[in-house]
Amino acid sequence: MQAKETGDGFIILKLDDGEDLMECLRKAIKDFGIGSAFVTMGIGMLKHAEIGYFSGKGYEKKLLEEPHEMISLQGSISTMGETVIHLHAGLANRNHQIFGGHLFSAKACVLNEILIKKVDVRLGRKPNPETGLKELFLD
Amino acid sequence: MQAKETGDGFIILKLDDGEDLMECLRKAIKDFGIGSAFVTMGIGMLKHAEIGYFSGKGYEKKLLEEPHEMISLQGSISTMGETVIHLHAGLANRNHQIFGGHLFSAKACVLNEILIKKVDVRLGRKPNPETGLKELFLD
Amino acid sequence: MQAKETGDGFIILKLDDGEDLMECLRKAIKDFGIGSAFVTMGIGMLKHAEIGYFSGKGYEKKLLEEPHEMISLQGSISTMGETVIHLHAGLANRNHQIFGGHLFSAKACVLNEILIKKVDVRLGRKPNPETGLKELFLD
Repeated sequence: MQAKETGDGFIILKLDDGEDLMECLRKAIKDFGIGSAFVTMGIGMLKHAEIGYFSGKGYEKKLLEEPHEMISLQGSISTMGETVIHLHAGLANRNHQIFGGHLFSAKACVLNEILIKKVDVRLGRKPNPETGLKELFLD
Repeated sequence: MQAKETGDGFIILKLDDGEDLMECLRKAIKDFGIGSAFVTMGIGMLKHAEIGYFSGKGYEKKLLEEPHEMISLQGSISTMGETVIHLHAGLANRNHQIFGGHLFSAKACVLNEILIKKVDVRLGRKPNPETGLKELFLD
Repeated sequence: MQAKETGDGFIILKLDDGEDLMECLRKAIKDFGIGSAFVTMGIGMLKHAEIGYFSGKGYEKKLLEEPHEMISLQGSISTMGETVIHLHAGLANRNHQIFGGHLFSAKACVLNEILIKKVDVRLGRKPNPETGLKELFLD
């Protein structure tokens, strides 16, 4: 992975084939001292991508083993208490059909280009007892 | 809804289950004095989402009653003359297949995380007599 | 096309029906002296859109002649050595189903609203002999 920060709080990541997306994001969080941020863009390809649909009680997951074109990547990063990376992705298969949802894990395929924006509003996570999810809150 | 503004003109929204997306955006426009802005990111889930395809003469609409994972949300906000919120969304169903288009209305399901960027270029809307649409213009 | 730059390095484009997306982006690169940038948002409709899936050896392409709603547009712009515009798009057909991938070319249909962010990290392209792709690098 290559990573650089702009003068106005954007962090650019370029991942290489086979790198773990979540590990790379955690490395960037550490290296650039990210407290709170949003993932505003991500393109390239992903493989071994585990996506999920939240049924209200839990996630119904699907593993997309084959490489997919990453059409979009959007999400949030919060580090208060524990680090949570909340990502949603749209992924196109060989027939150009798109699947997607909550993105649990994936490996970069060929390459990834990702843009993150640091924000000075503190983001945290608070458990919602009804859903079991750790919901975003703005501190 | 929780909402906060960063020092550099980003507004972060966290919507709770059942809240109306358009009403929340209109409240944010009022509370943060948004003149012109772009919706750069939105994740979470939507229900009762009405999406549309523009045929050239009008919108062909479809109501997605069931909760869908919101893969991406992108759009523009203009307030000159009248307030127009122009949103496009990609929405994944329980089988992880994505549907989308122009987003007319929706309710947040479980939660929504949305990122808006204020811009200092004035955005307005001007009717195009050929299509009947109020098109964006940069003042 | 109408185009304006904000005080903090965002460039807003409004394309009219029939305009060539890549030509308009190249005009904006020239007019606003864009060195390195990211396409963070794009909505509206596209026609004659050529999308691709990278098989590892080359792109498998598909031409979407009919107008499609542009659900999302994300990408990068680098100009060191040569100008490369790397875009991925999600496109919904009349049945609201989304197709997408690498976007080679397209014409705006009805209109396009696009948001670009200039960055002060220099982006270049370097050939990867294994894939034949010109990969992003951060200078």
